[in-house]
Amino acid sequence: MRIITINREFGSGGREVGKRLADVLHYRYYDSEIINAISLESNMDEGYVSSMLESGSFWDFPITYGNTFASFAEPQSNLTRLLVAERRVILDIAKKGENCVIVGRNADEILHGYHPFKIFVYAEMHSKITRCMEREKDGSHMTEKEMKKRIERIDSSRRRRNQLVGGGKWGAKESYNLCVNTTGCEIKKIVPGIADYIKAWFESGHAE
Amino acid sequence: MRIITINREFGSGGREVGKRLADVLHYRYYDSEIINAISLESNMDEGYVSSMLESGSFWDFPITYGNTFASFAEPQSNLTRLLVAERRVILDIAKKGENCVIVGRNADEILHGYHPFKIFVYAEMHSKITRCMEREKDGSHMTEKEMKKRIERIDSSRRRRNQLVGGGKWGAKESYNLCVNTTGCEIKKIVPGIADYIKAWFESGHAE
Repeated sequence: MRIITINREFGSGGREVGKRLADVLHYRYYDSEIINAISLESNMDEGYVSSMLESGSFWDFPITYGNTFASFAEPQSNLTRLLVAERRVILDIAKKGENCVIVGRNADEILHGYHPFKIFVYAEMHSKITRCMEREKDGSHMTEKEMKKRIERIDSSRRRRNQLVGGGKWGAKESYNLCVNTTGCEIKKIVPGIADYIKAWFESGHAE
Repeated sequence: MRIITINREFGSGGREVGKRLADVLHYRYYDSEIINAISLESNMDEGYVSSMLESGSFWDFPITYGNTFASFAEPQSNLTRLLVAERRVILDIAKKGENCVIVGRNADEILHGYHPFKIFVYAEMHSKITRCMEREKDGSHMTEKEMKKRIERIDSSRRRRNQLVGGGKWGAKESYNLCVNTTGCEIKKIVPGIADYIKAWFESGHAE
């Protein structure tokens, strides 16, 4: 079984990298169905789950919980319940034994024992702002300055959530097998090269 | 013209990545001939040039010179003469207009205006120690502990030299287009994937 986990800066195109990698490699791609499964598992509304896990409500949570995930077993709050559910859902995916791509969801940490190939996708701020403005051009009417703030807030939340589940350093290259800078890149064009690299990596003797 | 620059942690296999990339892509590979050209340019002995630029004699040099490269024009010491010569040699290579791979030598900074594809190659310490011990198995008789110290010393020197020529942050992923973790990898097997990625990167509209 081959698992690819993707962490990414908001606006870097990491989710698109994940989808396209799964396409090119014929792997399962997990995304919204994870939120769905967590919602079922935790018995909480899907929209609520999504906003809790995506938005950045982590600021008020004591970071000292970092390495004591065990104590999460006793639900102390909705957030801990969600993180416990997330852990179970992600582990269940791995137990299916299929090759897959998982974007975000702390999968890199949760599945560490399965030796996934870990990617971090990042980009320069101007590139992330452009990508976000492009993506939402018919939706919100944020200024570039507001968008920059939003990007920074979401990334802070991702970093913090990663620490919370006892992860390596979010965004530090040492925590990943490959770090891809998408500044100025058309994601569609660069994905086949990443796929080739990953195939070679698994074939060069890495545990499967 | 396409230029690939490679920076690397000592023992990560970065030089082998460079050689093999040049082979696979049919690019010129520049390495020892750069030392040779610097030696001619600066009128200093090749062995001396090599030890000055490779070994880590940079500790005593004031780091405040960082962004004032212009003042280097007046030779103040052998080191400044060498750095000026290095700069000229690297720029001359670029002026030839050939596709090429350059390992180290601050080429990423010196050739910034040519929009090179910048790679950083790194690995976990245990992997770097193993690679170095393997490489020198018939030569020196360093212990693992001594080897670790040597690796750290050489990388400190590289970091410092990079700062000295006004570079971005050495080893920080933001300074590169791709960061490759070679821990547990057979370099030969992963290089074609990197080559595919680079081809796609240049073809996806990056300045040439």
